[in-house]
Amino acid sequence: MFGIDSTGVYPIAPTPFTDGGAIDFDSTDRMVDWWGEIGATGMTVLGIMGEAPKLDQAESLAFVERCIRRAGRLPVLVGVSAPGFAAMRGLARAVMDKGAGGVMIAPPPSLRTDDQIVTYYAQAVEAIGSDIPFCIQDYPLTLSVVMTPRVIQRIITDNPSCVMLKHEDWPGLEKISALRRFETEGSLRRVSILTGNGGLFLDFETERGADGAMTGYAFPEMLVDVVRLQAEGRRDEAHDVFDAHLPLVRYEQQQGVGLAVRKYVLKRRGILASDAQRKPGSALTAAAKAEVEYLLERLARRDPRAARLPG
Amino acid sequence: MFGIDSTGVYPIAPTPFTDGGAIDFDSTDRMVDWWGEIGATGMTVLGIMGEAPKLDQAESLAFVERCIRRAGRLPVLVGVSAPGFAAMRGLARAVMDKGAGGVMIAPPPSLRTDDQIVTYYAQAVEAIGSDIPFCIQDYPLTLSVVMTPRVIQRIITDNPSCVMLKHEDWPGLEKISALRRFETEGSLRRVSILTGNGGLFLDFETERGADGAMTGYAFPEMLVDVVRLQAEGRRDEAHDVFDAHLPLVRYEQQQGVGLAVRKYVLKRRGILASDAQRKPGSALTAAAKAEVEYLLERLARRDPRAARLPG
Amino acid sequence: MFGIDSTGVYPIAPTPFTDGGAIDFDSTDRMVDWWGEIGATGMTVLGIMGEAPKLDQAESLAFVERCIRRAGRLPVLVGVSAPGFAAMRGLARAVMDKGAGGVMIAPPPSLRTDDQIVTYYAQAVEAIGSDIPFCIQDYPLTLSVVMTPRVIQRIITDNPSCVMLKHEDWPGLEKISALRRFETEGSLRRVSILTGNGGLFLDFETERGADGAMTGYAFPEMLVDVVRLQAEGRRDEAHDVFDAHLPLVRYEQQQGVGLAVRKYVLKRRGILASDAQRKPGSALTAAAKAEVEYLLERLARRDPRAARLPG
Amino acid sequence: MFGIDSTGVYPIAPTPFTDGGAIDFDSTDRMVDWWGEIGATGMTVLGIMGEAPKLDQAESLAFVERCIRRAGRLPVLVGVSAPGFAAMRGLARAVMDKGAGGVMIAPPPSLRTDDQIVTYYAQAVEAIGSDIPFCIQDYPLTLSVVMTPRVIQRIITDNPSCVMLKHEDWPGLEKISALRRFETEGSLRRVSILTGNGGLFLDFETERGADGAMTGYAFPEMLVDVVRLQAEGRRDEAHDVFDAHLPLVRYEQQQGVGLAVRKYVLKRRGILASDAQRKPGSALTAAAKAEVEYLLERLARRDPRAARLPG
Repeated sequence: MFGIDSTGVYPIAPTPFTDGGAIDFDSTDRMVDWWGEIGATGMTVLGIMGEAPKLDQAESLAFVERCIRRAGRLPVLVGVSAPGFAAMRGLARAVMDKGAGGVMIAPPPSLRTDDQIVTYYAQAVEAIGSDIPFCIQDYPLTLSVVMTPRVIQRIITDNPSCVMLKHEDWPGLEKISALRRFETEGSLRRVSILTGNGGLFLDFETERGADGAMTGYAFPEMLVDVVRLQAEGRRDEAHDVFDAHLPLVRYEQQQGVGLAVRKYVLKRRGILASDAQRKPGSALTAAAKAEVEYLLERLARRDPRAARLPG
Repeated sequence: MFGIDSTGVYPIAPTPFTDGGAIDFDSTDRMVDWWGEIGATGMTVLGIMGEAPKLDQAESLAFVERCIRRAGRLPVLVGVSAPGFAAMRGLARAVMDKGAGGVMIAPPPSLRTDDQIVTYYAQAVEAIGSDIPFCIQDYPLTLSVVMTPRVIQRIITDNPSCVMLKHEDWPGLEKISALRRFETEGSLRRVSILTGNGGLFLDFETERGADGAMTGYAFPEMLVDVVRLQAEGRRDEAHDVFDAHLPLVRYEQQQGVGLAVRKYVLKRRGILASDAQRKPGSALTAAAKAEVEYLLERLARRDPRAARLPG
Repeated sequence: MFGIDSTGVYPIAPTPFTDGGAIDFDSTDRMVDWWGEIGATGMTVLGIMGEAPKLDQAESLAFVERCIRRAGRLPVLVGVSAPGFAAMRGLARAVMDKGAGGVMIAPPPSLRTDDQIVTYYAQAVEAIGSDIPFCIQDYPLTLSVVMTPRVIQRIITDNPSCVMLKHEDWPGLEKISALRRFETEGSLRRVSILTGNGGLFLDFETERGADGAMTGYAFPEMLVDVVRLQAEGRRDEAHDVFDAHLPLVRYEQQQGVGLAVRKYVLKRRGILASDAQRKPGSALTAAAKAEVEYLLERLARRDPRAARLPG
Repeated sequence: MFGIDSTGVYPIAPTPFTDGGAIDFDSTDRMVDWWGEIGATGMTVLGIMGEAPKLDQAESLAFVERCIRRAGRLPVLVGVSAPGFAAMRGLARAVMDKGAGGVMIAPPPSLRTDDQIVTYYAQAVEAIGSDIPFCIQDYPLTLSVVMTPRVIQRIITDNPSCVMLKHEDWPGLEKISALRRFETEGSLRRVSILTGNGGLFLDFETERGADGAMTGYAFPEMLVDVVRLQAEGRRDEAHDVFDAHLPLVRYEQQQGVGLAVRKYVLKRRGILASDAQRKPGSALTAAAKAEVEYLLERLARRDPRAARLPG
């Protein structure tokens, strides 16, 4: 269940499109089934990497509904960030009616001061209703909003419906430690912390107190492995599998190009039928494709799951 | 008609709300009628000052439809800026079906390079269709996107459906001169240029080549006067009426607070039944209200239209 | 004396250059003398409008020294904002040795959170020494750092050497009221508040509790008048003189172009021998010069000090 | 020699301080000697990572002079970015007099349009003199200035004294390819391209046409290896050594914390006597130190140069 005790891996869903640009529901089903099989504990749809703004309202709801139905017992978290509270409320109520586990809210880029950020979350909760569990998205690199640990503490304390932090600050290891320290000191109730940034620091984030990952790496099996191995106290093995994937994780984490790499690899793995993006999108050049193939080859030597890709 | 020859004053419509937060259609009718009476030549709805993001999709369309029906022969320009092209296309097609004169498109704040801006407008036109006349919104102070005259020239030249520039650069007098010079030199086809910034530079913008104003000052009669007097070559009189209003124009042009001032004055003038804003909004303090009242009193000595306000 | 009780008008000094680009010390003397004659109570040098970064270290010190010597009993505040604390300390200590009244410190544009801003000022004071009286420069429009009243309260409370706020937020009337309310409530010790933004809101800033103006309008006599008349309780007269100048104040307050207008008018008034700027700078076009002349003509009808300019 | 044919590795020099905060010239000598021994082909001082703004003018020159004298035949590139051209010129002329190989110039963060960037470099060259070879620093992540390949082409073409690009865009692989394609097509003269970002993409940057690296990783031996192996056509070996270091490269590339990690490792390696930074700086927590030690241990298994560190 989506809540303060959520752990494990929530893949960020890309939205599969056909080459013609329609939502590809067959690939969507395949992707959701696959996440269940490899040990994901939930999933996040309509995130920044999900090309959410390129869907119209009807498409957004249809995609969310398909994911929820297919996900079965796995909770589905839905990104509802919007330029205004009317649209946020409309989407949030609609997806909860359809069975979503909760919603994720990012701050608009114009926010600057501590009070502005805290007030924004209070107003957002007032708009969507305090009965909807929500996750804070803390992603300064893209959103240019900087939340201190104290600001996150205030948001969590002010809003009982806040159950999770998507931690995507960079660098952010000390922020995880600070929040967990607040909990130990008794000044903060516990929430789930799942981390982003394509998994680039997951090896240490789990050691600092993160409960898992919420990100979109094209081999989420690695994310699942790292979280599980760390939970079992098998630190060296966790780092071994992480390090094997790091060259590709790093390549996929390039701003702007990253989604193209991710969709390309998911197509190569047989999950997506097409790696098409809606506009504006970035296509991989021949040189970039060759680099990804080379990285996959090298990865296959250390992780057999990267070998003999069907696509 | 909305087009390359548009002149005069397009008030930016605030969206009237009741104290309870619903759209106030009676006030909307009154406002639109009033604009017709005082000599506006068109109007712009769902702009930044119109609290557009605070309306959900159905409300947006209902408001646009009401304005269009009431406006009669006056063209209605509709802001369709959106985080993604799917929503932009949906809104643009819908409002044109309902009888809008055209649409206005602002660049998203993330754009930086000349090519990024030019490409964005090409993709936007591809998304909404090249049959919809559109207006470029050039508003760096709020949008943080800086368009050189050459970039505007490229957008106009590349897209035959571009018929207007909403000029809201600051300072921007030289930009108007540069664009009109391009026209004289034959390197740019003519488009209409209407200016914003609350009218703060309208006295000189009209002398530099602007065709009028598209902005939201609560005494649009002054904007109409200035445009008319300048067109008639009565420069000193144009500046006289402008200067009389400048203390209030300046007060209303404060970022963030401006809309609260505008709605307050429109209520005092008997146009709006309420000056309510939806959240997030800024209310006027008692001190600010007293300042506005003092400015209105002083204005009344020089412009009788500010005397004996009913509200 | 520069301190918590400072009132009146501190003109922001432009740096006079000869047409050849050297510092023009004769014009400097003339300007400083003139400020004394018209009732300025201090002056600020090496501010943003003073082209400070275009001077090398030796030139900066020479200019400061000349101003201090000429200013006599009038205190000279020196801008010491710098990319690093070493340069800030060096300049601050040097100008205090030469007789400056205090220094002004702006936050670097990278600061975002409340704590970052408060920490920055603590480190700046540690760097320059807690014996140097300083003024906070709060100028979000240009610096993109947003300080809430609470943050300013913390800086003032943490640093006994903070004696003044240069208030240049926009809109900023409520901020002045909030700070003065803190004082009344006993949660903030008194500091002097002088306001900027070219004087665009001085008419009301003085009513909200500002002690005067620190800005660079080319007719500082008007600033002096407004502050004096408001102090004498002659509100309407204060607004009358303010309103007479507002068309030019507004024109001069254009970002980027403003300094060119200011130097042009100061040359026309016979204060500066040349309106040259060092690169990068903006020159006035013929159209802009004609606009300024027209504004001066119109101003002369209401304020005789604008008539018969010698330059 | 520093010029259009420069290849290899230019370490970005941190500025060594004693625990008391003075420049540590002994450590400086040791560091410079060591770079010569491990195969660096030059070095860059007073860069962003070099805490340049924390040095006063005399210190900056003393540090540059010490590096140049010790570097012998290795060219020293000096960062001269400054808020104004007067300081830039002063520093540039002074360091060239002392024997620097050239200077590096970053654009100020306020630049937005293509023309603004091109004009800035023209004015900078006019200020420092066209006889000083310079390197463009293209670092959008920190500087927020986005240069397209066409803009870089214009700067190189307009300014014969431009001999190098420090490429630090992210993602930036396609930018290298685009620039090299311009050369092949004959629309751009050749300049040296050295890459930054802590080396995070060096494995592929060298394949795209980069001539080497200019960055500050604490094991520059790896950078030297990758450049050499790629030049010899030993691609797999280049990637092997790169991948072995990637976990630490990634850790060191965290914004803000990175310099603390780098100085810590350089101290552990016996190069620096202290890892002190001047304020504002970030210290490593105990948790972070333990993470770095763990990464060093793991690295030592794959690269013996990381074993048995003396510090």
